[in-house]
Amino acid sequence: MTDRRSFWGWGVEGGGPTDDQAAGIAATLAQRFGRDLTLADPPRIEDVKLPPSDVAVPDALQHMCCTEPWDRAGHTYGKAYRDVIRALRNDFSAAPAVVAFPETEDDVVALLDWSAGSGRAAVPYGGGSSVVGGVECPGAVSIDLTRLDRVLEVDPVSRAARIQVGALGPVLEEQLRPHGYTLRHFPQSFEFSTLGGWLATRSGGHYATVYTHIDDMVESMRVVTPSGVSESRRLPGSGAGPSPDRMFLGSEGILGVITEAWMRVQDRPRWRASAGVRFGSYLDGVAATRAVSQAALFPTNCRLLDSAEAVISAGVQDVEGALLVLGFESADHPVDGWMARAVELCQDHGGTIPEGVRTSGPEDESEGASREGAVGAWRNAFVRAPYTRDALARMAVIADTFETSCTWDAFESFHGAVTATVEDALREICGDGWVTCRFTHVYPDGPAPYFSIIAPGRRGSELEMWDEVKAAASEAVLAHGGTITHHHAVGRDHRPWYDRQRPEPFAAALVAAKRELDPAGVLNPGVLIDPLP
Amino acid sequence: MTDRRSFWGWGVEGGGPTDDQAAGIAATLAQRFGRDLTLADPPRIEDVKLPPSDVAVPDALQHMCCTEPWDRAGHTYGKAYRDVIRALRNDFSAAPAVVAFPETEDDVVALLDWSAGSGRAAVPYGGGSSVVGGVECPGAVSIDLTRLDRVLEVDPVSRAARIQVGALGPVLEEQLRPHGYTLRHFPQSFEFSTLGGWLATRSGGHYATVYTHIDDMVESMRVVTPSGVSESRRLPGSGAGPSPDRMFLGSEGILGVITEAWMRVQDRPRWRASAGVRFGSYLDGVAATRAVSQAALFPTNCRLLDSAEAVISAGVQDVEGALLVLGFESADHPVDGWMARAVELCQDHGGTIPEGVRTSGPEDESEGASREGAVGAWRNAFVRAPYTRDALARMAVIADTFETSCTWDAFESFHGAVTATVEDALREICGDGWVTCRFTHVYPDGPAPYFSIIAPGRRGSELEMWDEVKAAASEAVLAHGGTITHHHAVGRDHRPWYDRQRPEPFAAALVAAKRELDPAGVLNPGVLIDPLP
Repeated sequence: MTDRRSFWGWGVEGGGPTDDQAAGIAATLAQRFGRDLTLADPPRIEDVKLPPSDVAVPDALQHMCCTEPWDRAGHTYGKAYRDVIRALRNDFSAAPAVVAFPETEDDVVALLDWSAGSGRAAVPYGGGSSVVGGVECPGAVSIDLTRLDRVLEVDPVSRAARIQVGALGPVLEEQLRPHGYTLRHFPQSFEFSTLGGWLATRSGGHYATVYTHIDDMVESMRVVTPSGVSESRRLPGSGAGPSPDRMFLGSEGILGVITEAWMRVQDRPRWRASAGVRFGSYLDGVAATRAVSQAALFPTNCRLLDSAEAVISAGVQDVEGALLVLGFESADHPVDGWMARAVELCQDHGGTIPEGVRTSGPEDESEGASREGAVGAWRNAFVRAPYTRDALARMAVIADTFETSCTWDAFESFHGAVTATVEDALREICGDGWVTCRFTHVYPDGPAPYFSIIAPGRRGSELEMWDEVKAAASEAVLAHGGTITHHHAVGRDHRPWYDRQRPEPFAAALVAAKRELDPAGVLNPGVLIDPLP
Repeated sequence: MTDRRSFWGWGVEGGGPTDDQAAGIAATLAQRFGRDLTLADPPRIEDVKLPPSDVAVPDALQHMCCTEPWDRAGHTYGKAYRDVIRALRNDFSAAPAVVAFPETEDDVVALLDWSAGSGRAAVPYGGGSSVVGGVECPGAVSIDLTRLDRVLEVDPVSRAARIQVGALGPVLEEQLRPHGYTLRHFPQSFEFSTLGGWLATRSGGHYATVYTHIDDMVESMRVVTPSGVSESRRLPGSGAGPSPDRMFLGSEGILGVITEAWMRVQDRPRWRASAGVRFGSYLDGVAATRAVSQAALFPTNCRLLDSAEAVISAGVQDVEGALLVLGFESADHPVDGWMARAVELCQDHGGTIPEGVRTSGPEDESEGASREGAVGAWRNAFVRAPYTRDALARMAVIADTFETSCTWDAFESFHGAVTATVEDALREICGDGWVTCRFTHVYPDGPAPYFSIIAPGRRGSELEMWDEVKAAASEAVLAHGGTITHHHAVGRDHRPWYDRQRPEPFAAALVAAKRELDPAGVLNPGVLIDPLP
């Protein structure tokens, strides 16, 4: 394992399972699916054929632009299943013409000026972890923002920090740690995604409730648009017109390039309580989770796993109905009272806690402690899941996730219908496969269910098979009241369903805003809306 | 006191202080200011001269349109200080041409079709409680939405309700109560403002933290725009592009007429704890409030009053530095643990609680109980304050409020500079007067300070004096890092400062969105942005 980012798959080179481990996974799945699974070799950069880079970079920008194969190949795709499959096939036909590495906001301005002036598409690129085709644009200038990675200011009174958008999760946290702070935003992609990517896609953090969405942590933002720089005022709250920040949050790079933001940070947690609550029936688990989410207790973790998810993502084998991973934490006070009430609510719905509640106080506080035990194991498995997905892709296994949200009243029929539809699709398209579900976030009015699928594919047909399964899943999500994405964004891949979900007048307004801010239509064309004519 | 809405001032006819009470207030203030104060008579509708209604209402719309003087006069202004002064002067020159009372969404569509087709301005009108010139538009069609006042559906599983926007606060709560729910949104204008007004202006509720802003209670919205109806999907959370709802929230009627919304409601609270914490120094009170706001305890009330505010709005005479009105409540569990920790934090900063903590449990739950005691008295004074303001206006006293927010690090200098600037302005312009401050909301990164001013005016010059004071206050707020409005909206009155506050590219995008949704530019022209050319 090196520090160099993989040009074709998740994370760093060699960061996934070893070949032996991958072979073990293949053997297990082969048995489960009753068919042979062989492990394709990862692509080698020297075998990659890139389209010629047909671009004349102005002299003034040469120093930050690069056309090396590794960089162009590495910036061709995000990290969706279909991206990895195409990379495994040595298909990098969608490569950008050039990768730019701005080091200042002025560099970004200069790049957009060039892009708008020449009509060449420009794609803001953070960690490249998009799973929705958010950074894929053949022949574009890929603007890699990871050199803009500094925490520029820390305000310890307001507990806020001014942070450049290119900071990857660990880079940002490392700079906040000496001040005693954390942004406390831990999406699964944490290691390989940036603040800017989180902002542009309305990322959801690891935590279950309250301040976990990146939207709610923004105090102000700077955005370079082709028509000028937008800077909002640092404000804890405001009612002065529609929120300017909310227009750029979720705009996925089509309106401008976010360059920095004042973010609300938090004291590092010192007290913790966690428990694994078991339910004999899945719907009892759902009812308990709903009760907890509506009690204004604001747990940090409230992740309901179905029995298959309990095995896969928590390593717990004997769950009959559901396992609720429940947690509270605080930088200010012990959280036993909060946990006690949540446990009561779970018990009211038939929940049991065979292993009891686990608590830790300030004396246990250390980086190490919080990474140990079951929670630590779960977290490690969680952040390593995308590596495993790549190994599965190498076996021609169809492995993907889709995530959504719906209201509590709709959930039972939603879950039933979506699961049945996708299971049917897997049987029909793949001959086998399974669907699991967990909640990533819970709101007083509904959960955010996250589905994972694994099914045997046929080498050479993975994309077509994936497309069919994805379409079936997306249709079911939309038909039964969900959103096409809760925190993975729209990109290019979710467009057909997004187009049916968002109100038409809003789409028209968004196009109008785009025309105003990016009249040449160069910014990430095809994402969210059609390219401007 | 009748049930009929006043056509010139706050609330219902005769709903303010009696003439005797008003005379008492006048006597007290006269002594304080060392000058005579006489009470002008309220205007009489028969003396009001309205401009002719130069409008030919199409036959199909006649049944919902009205040109009676009472209605036209009553829909001329909001309830800003300058509105009341102009009304007291019998100046209703800004009257709408006609007041329409749609009873269905189709009626709203028909009205907008007429408006767009004829080029006549249309102003959505809820409770008419705007204090920023939000509903003032001479010769317009005033679209009074209060007949669209039904709770159409209640979803007890997701705890949400579909509500028509014309419901005034009490009308809406009355329909939720039989279901055991409350929207729990209590702005000071509660009795005389509507859900639609709250949504269009990003209203702030009575409560101090977490789910108190109307923005955060919206699950989905329907908006009639001249270009079509926008309907968002009922979702607890979504990351599918920029939030459509957030574009309409705070749009103040310039993009469309919101007709209904699915709102997150809550169980009615059963447990309460409250305390009045005293601080010898104002800044100690500020520090304690900051500590509480950053501890993730989420108090329902966390209102820091300076010593003058303590007298005026809590009736507490002997506060040296500051009084923190602290409260917790829950529908689910006793809140003693939460209050205990908040009290500790206050004590760490020198706070004392001479009267102790007052708690109540489910056995005390009744409409009556919650309205009794000091908290009840405070609440009654709170909702009656606008009536008193009208009485002061009748005495030619300058009486107004302005509200903002800023980060904690800026607060001390912000508060000092704004207070000094406004005190100077009052001395110079009015010869006397005072400024008080309380926090209406607190965030982890800053408070929302709310300033009140009272000063002696000169009859006949109140508007000019008010304009000068308001300009001085607004300049100071902007110069020292605040927002021109935290929850009173922009309207027409805050435009000069809003125009300097919001990012220019955002304003351009908003204009573009307006052109798309309201190409004829008929909706509430002059609010937020210049009328379309």
